Amino acid sequence: MIEPKVLKGFRDFLPPQESARRSLIAVIEASFRSFGFVPIDTPALEYADILLGKGGGETEKQVYRFTDHGGREVALRFDLTVPFARFVAEHRSELTLPFKRYHIAKVWRGENTQRGRYREFTQCDFDIVGSNSAAADFEILLIMRNTFASLGADALIRINHRGLFNRFLTGLGAGEKSVEVLRCVDKLAKQGLEQTALRLGEITGEKTAERILEYIGVPAQVSICGSRDSTNGGPDSMNENQNSTSGSRSSFGEVLERLSGAAGTGPETERLSLIHRYMKDTGTEASFVLDPSITRGLDYYTGVVFETFLRKLPGIGSVCSGGRYDDLAGLYSKEQLCGVGSSIGLDRLQAALEELGQAPRQGGCARAAIVCRDEAEAGLNQVLAEQFRRRGISCEVFPEPKKFSAQFVLAEKKGIPWAIIPEGEKITLRNIAARENRENLSLEEAAALLKE
Amino acid sequence: MIEPKVLKGFRDFLPPQESARRSLIAVIEASFRSFGFVPIDTPALEYADILLGKGGGETEKQVYRFTDHGGREVALRFDLTVPFARFVAEHRSELTLPFKRYHIAKVWRGENTQRGRYREFTQCDFDIVGSNSAAADFEILLIMRNTFASLGADALIRINHRGLFNRFLTGLGAGEKSVEVLRCVDKLAKQGLEQTALRLGEITGEKTAERILEYIGVPAQVSICGSRDSTNGGPDSMNENQNSTSGSRSSFGEVLERLSGAAGTGPETERLSLIHRYMKDTGTEASFVLDPSITRGLDYYTGVVFETFLRKLPGIGSVCSGGRYDDLAGLYSKEQLCGVGSSIGLDRLQAALEELGQAPRQGGCARAAIVCRDEAEAGLNQVLAEQFRRRGISCEVFPEPKKFSAQFVLAEKKGIPWAIIPEGEKITLRNIAARENRENLSLEEAAALLKE
Repeated sequence: MIEPKVLKGFRDFLPPQESARRSLIAVIEASFRSFGFVPIDTPALEYADILLGKGGGETEKQVYRFTDHGGREVALRFDLTVPFARFVAEHRSELTLPFKRYHIAKVWRGENTQRGRYREFTQCDFDIVGSNSAAADFEILLIMRNTFASLGADALIRINHRGLFNRFLTGLGAGEKSVEVLRCVDKLAKQGLEQTALRLGEITGEKTAERILEYIGVPAQVSICGSRDSTNGGPDSMNENQNSTSGSRSSFGEVLERLSGAAGTGPETERLSLIHRYMKDTGTEASFVLDPSITRGLDYYTGVVFETFLRKLPGIGSVCSGGRYDDLAGLYSKEQLCGVGSSIGLDRLQAALEELGQAPRQGGCARAAIVCRDEAEAGLNQVLAEQFRRRGISCEVFPEPKKFSAQFVLAEKKGIPWAIIPEGEKITLRNIAARENRENLSLEEAAALLKE
Repeated sequence: MIEPKVLKGFRDFLPPQESARRSLIAVIEASFRSFGFVPIDTPALEYADILLGKGGGETEKQVYRFTDHGGREVALRFDLTVPFARFVAEHRSELTLPFKRYHIAKVWRGENTQRGRYREFTQCDFDIVGSNSAAADFEILLIMRNTFASLGADALIRINHRGLFNRFLTGLGAGEKSVEVLRCVDKLAKQGLEQTALRLGEITGEKTAERILEYIGVPAQVSICGSRDSTNGGPDSMNENQNSTSGSRSSFGEVLERLSGAAGTGPETERLSLIHRYMKDTGTEASFVLDPSITRGLDYYTGVVFETFLRKLPGIGSVCSGGRYDDLAGLYSKEQLCGVGSSIGLDRLQAALEELGQAPRQGGCARAAIVCRDEAEAGLNQVLAEQFRRRGISCEVFPEPKKFSAQFVLAEKKGIPWAIIPEGEKITLRNIAARENRENLSLEEAAALLKE
């Protein structure tokens, strides 16, 4: 006999979790669709050299790759961005720009599972490709805000502009250290202030490091304890200090003014101003803060970048992140395609909503079950069940002619709230939890009760 | 530069196909749910020895397997049945029997792609585990019938009982050849009559082979040309001869009588009688035929087996097949669990519905797009778009301030039927296809038009 078990870092989804998960996806998808975004899908398995490109250290080690039957080097996708770049390059002639697509699918990474990370997880990506406008940036931000709002989750979206940060660094004479500095700042929450200050000092010299810390809003003498990636649910203290007034109308503008002063004005500040205006015009300003410490690790972002935190659970980290890029598919195409996009980490979001008691209603099992009195009646019971199904009431038919009491227990175990007992032309409904019967009901009366 | 291309046997889904696919899945899922079936999911990647069990020649060669970073032998799932068996054994204590579950997910097989087969495809499995009743058999059959009906597809479900076939073989003294005979008969459509008769003769001797061909309803002197697996769309001539009166009330009963005469009566004929009674009680008899040539290749079926053909496109083969088994999880558990289940091949079904012009309405793109007059108005345009979205009308906001004519062309290319032109407090709607404007509309008037 073989012991039944899944691989480390992988999970089964039992019906309650899978039902909740599907409800969550349905809400997210409806939000994307309402903005006119259309779905695509790509293969789970691709040529390894397409997925890995020039090869990227950290990523490469985590990728599931192997040689297939035909001797091809293949790999499981580790995100939805790289397949999307390949997809756009391959189907360019079939797409109309600006192309607004979403993609909800699983990805695989052989990551260290110690920090509660999974090796199979679901991403929900949405992008606008082929528009360099601030309007496109803002639409992605608005979708993020509205999607979380429709989930009943109070989200705060932190925005920055990498170009502005780079302009600031150039002003300090540290422009050529940009990649290193942005990566270092991205790890601030994980590394803590002391480590970050030390590392920044190594990269740029101590004096410049102090200016950088000042720019991102962390006075050098303040110690930082909160970790953006911790899962203890504690407050994300780092940025709240700086931007705790984020709900007020002026904060975005105030920060923008400070950053403009430090980095100088230019197309980056103009864009942030325009985005700020859109926020005011849509009355959504309270959902956003301008936070110069948000940099995103990935090199390919070139414009605005953003991360999303649940106000009631900031400690779990960003549940939706992204940014603007100016060359999506450069590896596969000569055409330079700019765009802006974001990605919801479904597993982290679902865990957070469960912790907050805000997961979508599961609707996992049937609303009612018809008890079985006699094996010969199974056909007639299905006819009755169809009457309810047609009225939008999911209805099981129990197949085994056991004692009614045993069938009520079965309904209870399954979480089915009502049992239906056919009595000739009439129906008895049993409320399983209350252990009460409603007798002598017509079909319509029973259906009305079941719909309550 | 790397050439952007997918692996042989793999596919991208562009928005129209992916939208249609998601609509199709939504219909199927709603049908499963209306019967009280609940969803599960399992990992794409599992331990190879769990998926391959004792190892099965044909299958093993097709499986994508490799060694992961931790030195584990792993494989991509090649169906949803084996992971379900493992799932049930692993979570037995968390499940209430009878357990009715569905699972819609991708599976991978490195199959020969020449016959239009894909190496990544989607299965929709649904099973009732833990009930040995005829009522459970019939519920699976009814779900098959109702699901195809709700897709507007006219389906014919062919049923047989492997136990009855075995009883017949035992009566002929060929009981110990059962596995070989059933596999041989299963390949009748592919191999043709002559080959099958020859092969049966080798297995059982010529005289017995003749009796078997008679039992399955193929007079030995009739030549057979139709192939159940061909995709030429020609009529599936093989079984229609025998059961062309399948729509009439008596055919199932008539065939059952003939088979009972040949094999003798017993629990198998009793079960088929009961299932036949359920068909009559539910008025669904016309959707089913009893067809003794249906055997299913898999050894693990022990009771009823069934295949589903689209009446208008029988040549594409079965779009939904399954049967009853008496030991689902024997490889992983001492507990013997019986059940009955079926599986829709989504890719074949989608291709068939497309060919028949019956694919679900795609609803792929937005209903309307707000044209962009000035970059500064993007926020206000989003406010207007929200008014429509709240009324259930998906609405894009075009981000670039181009000429209106260019934006109308963009809408047309994307398949968006209406453009919205904000005019102060009023709205102009442009019907893109008709090239007509409706001017001076209030929001409510515009929304009403867009909903038509």
